[in-house]
Amino acid sequence: MSLLLRGAGGARGALRPCCPWGRAASRRGLSSSSGAGGLPGGGAGVRPGRRSLLAGLAGAAAALAGLGLARRAEMVSREPVAPSLGGEEAAAEEEEDELSRRCGDFMAPPVSGLRELRSRRQDVRSRMEMLIMETQSQVCRALAQVDRGAAFTVDRWERKEGGGGISCVLQDGNIFEKAGVNVSVVSGHLSEEAVQQMRSRGKTLKTKNGKLPFCAMGVSSVIHPKNPHVPTIHFNYRYFEIEEADGTKQWWFGGGTDLTPTYLNEEDAVHFHKTLKEACDQHNPELYPKYKKWCDDYFYIKHRGERRGIGGIFFDDLDSPSKEEAFQFVQSCAKAVVPCYVPIVKKHSCDSFTPEEKLWQQLRRGRYVEFNLVYDRGTKFGLATPGSRIESILMSLPLTARWQYMHTPPEKSREAEILEVLRNPKDWVH
Amino acid sequence: MSLLLRGAGGARGALRPCCPWGRAASRRGLSSSSGAGGLPGGGAGVRPGRRSLLAGLAGAAAALAGLGLARRAEMVSREPVAPSLGGEEAAAEEEEDELSRRCGDFMAPPVSGLRELRSRRQDVRSRMEMLIMETQSQVCRALAQVDRGAAFTVDRWERKEGGGGISCVLQDGNIFEKAGVNVSVVSGHLSEEAVQQMRSRGKTLKTKNGKLPFCAMGVSSVIHPKNPHVPTIHFNYRYFEIEEADGTKQWWFGGGTDLTPTYLNEEDAVHFHKTLKEACDQHNPELYPKYKKWCDDYFYIKHRGERRGIGGIFFDDLDSPSKEEAFQFVQSCAKAVVPCYVPIVKKHSCDSFTPEEKLWQQLRRGRYVEFNLVYDRGTKFGLATPGSRIESILMSLPLTARWQYMHTPPEKSREAEILEVLRNPKDWVH
Repeated sequence: MSLLLRGAGGARGALRPCCPWGRAASRRGLSSSSGAGGLPGGGAGVRPGRRSLLAGLAGAAAALAGLGLARRAEMVSREPVAPSLGGEEAAAEEEEDELSRRCGDFMAPPVSGLRELRSRRQDVRSRMEMLIMETQSQVCRALAQVDRGAAFTVDRWERKEGGGGISCVLQDGNIFEKAGVNVSVVSGHLSEEAVQQMRSRGKTLKTKNGKLPFCAMGVSSVIHPKNPHVPTIHFNYRYFEIEEADGTKQWWFGGGTDLTPTYLNEEDAVHFHKTLKEACDQHNPELYPKYKKWCDDYFYIKHRGERRGIGGIFFDDLDSPSKEEAFQFVQSCAKAVVPCYVPIVKKHSCDSFTPEEKLWQQLRRGRYVEFNLVYDRGTKFGLATPGSRIESILMSLPLTARWQYMHTPPEKSREAEILEVLRNPKDWVH
Repeated sequence: MSLLLRGAGGARGALRPCCPWGRAASRRGLSSSSGAGGLPGGGAGVRPGRRSLLAGLAGAAAALAGLGLARRAEMVSREPVAPSLGGEEAAAEEEEDELSRRCGDFMAPPVSGLRELRSRRQDVRSRMEMLIMETQSQVCRALAQVDRGAAFTVDRWERKEGGGGISCVLQDGNIFEKAGVNVSVVSGHLSEEAVQQMRSRGKTLKTKNGKLPFCAMGVSSVIHPKNPHVPTIHFNYRYFEIEEADGTKQWWFGGGTDLTPTYLNEEDAVHFHKTLKEACDQHNPELYPKYKKWCDDYFYIKHRGERRGIGGIFFDDLDSPSKEEAFQFVQSCAKAVVPCYVPIVKKHSCDSFTPEEKLWQQLRRGRYVEFNLVYDRGTKFGLATPGSRIESILMSLPLTARWQYMHTPPEKSREAEILEVLRNPKDWVH
């Protein structure tokens, strides 16, 4: 069951922008500090009515979608957990509470519930959950504004063993073919299999009878636009905590943002990378070059000898210099999503295109599917985990894709130009 | 480089049928012993001119495509090996030779060359190579006839370490969206990795310094029609030989044929399974039930809880009761491909369909891609093998596919009807 956020205000809430972005702005230049970047959560649209949202929320199959970590999750069918308020006092408190005010802008109530979040508000777990909810909301609202009337479907799902998620999907809009932004917050015990998977990635963990208590959360998203001159974006920011048998707690962050254009536009590539570099440089000038390379290495379609796109940043196992500093860094990256992408969408969404350009986009979409199904660690792990919420995991696949036998673009064509960059990644900013 | 078989006769040969199959026949009933089943190799079309075929053949990247077994293959760029004839005497001998006559109907000269095939004509290796070449030719000609003017592209590729293959692809025809029939015949030494892969499948093999001389060959094919009322078919028949360190030779066959309809047609399902059962029953009445179940188990999309299609037969590691009897069985299965499928194509290729039915087909194509990229052993192994001929491996993917978030067909719809059968396989013949 899902709730469709459509229409202007009223019981079901609305994501239609108050002041729709117009065609006049479509040709302006790019600037990482320009308009869209400053979008506050919910600033662009009427926010969803909380009570009606709660009434419409659905219990569903649950697992970690796109996080690459989950225990067996089973279907549950019960009323969603509302922010745990007790009586009028608590309600009054909520009204004044800054946390409560921020939650009001979210696409749905946070998974952990307001009382729990408030009780440990200084804890990175709470702050990260607020950050991923805020990121989901900011991105969805910015996209809805650009799409001029698009409808996001909001699905809230729960996980029997603890936690759940919120999947927001816009399908067949004006500008976007398929845009999904997914949040999940899960906890429980890691299975032996998941522990093995983590060990092979360099983590040494002491289990108790092969089990590890864990907590994991993240926001992940893939946005596929219709126009072949508007690139696809993917981002994912996540946080893990694990308690070992001796009580030692391990924690780490992972994430990244990367761009997949159908055609190369150097100005866009520079804008995208420059915005990410600025976010990284606030914390350490060594981060961007390191995570840019990691991104090029990770999104590699080995059997094609091509990267999936023109890269961005990617990192995993980030547990230094301190939890606070790592969180601040992740926060900067998450806040860079809208400014690195939305100006590019605005710039190109009215560009004209030929049927041949649309066809090339569809072939590139086929490559996107190949990467996600054959190589992507999160997707593979999610598919292999019984009880995962498959629809949230495969939300990343494009609406349509194409495979043509022996398709080779002519030399010096615009199609060959992007292939060259996918085969030999470039440095876009220095 | 590839050779396009188009046009009526002449230097480049033709696959356009002499007496095109007409609309009048489209509504007739099904019978496994009817017309198409008896198609002789090359009976339907003018056969390609041998000399011009040779002139147009291309050296290309080579590996075992779809066989699930290969050593590292590298790009080669040299003239194809023509049937090794020396002087006029040999040419005269070839003219009279039955082997030579059969080769004349093939889509391209056989990989091993006529002299080699002739020198060991009683050997199962030679007989299997002739069988897979004949199967390729029969299927391509039958499809070309049904498609009324479709063009098959014939690519011949070589493998540096030994052997090569012939890929025949028809793309965007009148009836078929994408039809690929691939033959490969390779030999060399199995890598440690491949040996491990085989061991995990129950074979115990004694290597010499981790290497095993091997020979592998097979025909594999996927046919995706345009009309959603015409099902997709896949088949694959293969033979392996391995020589262990102590000189012991191991050999086995594998293969199968399975159908993936977009909508269920019970008459078609019965015809398809009955034809396969008849082929199996000629050899042993226990084979069909065993291989039917194996097929349902193998083509399982675990994360969806659905089979890819309505099954057929599937078997592997077949090394009994004798090499001769196993070969005879495989031959019966290969010869059943055209009669189990082509009558269904003829019956439905003029059926009218709605845009909604086309959309459902595209969603099912998405599932086909999921199975092939996530689960299919041959595809996975091929993609993981450096130097594989990727275009031949991914020939199995449909021209177009679709993924729609949370698509659920209405209860009791025709879409729900096929889903039910994919979730709970039925017995079609007893």
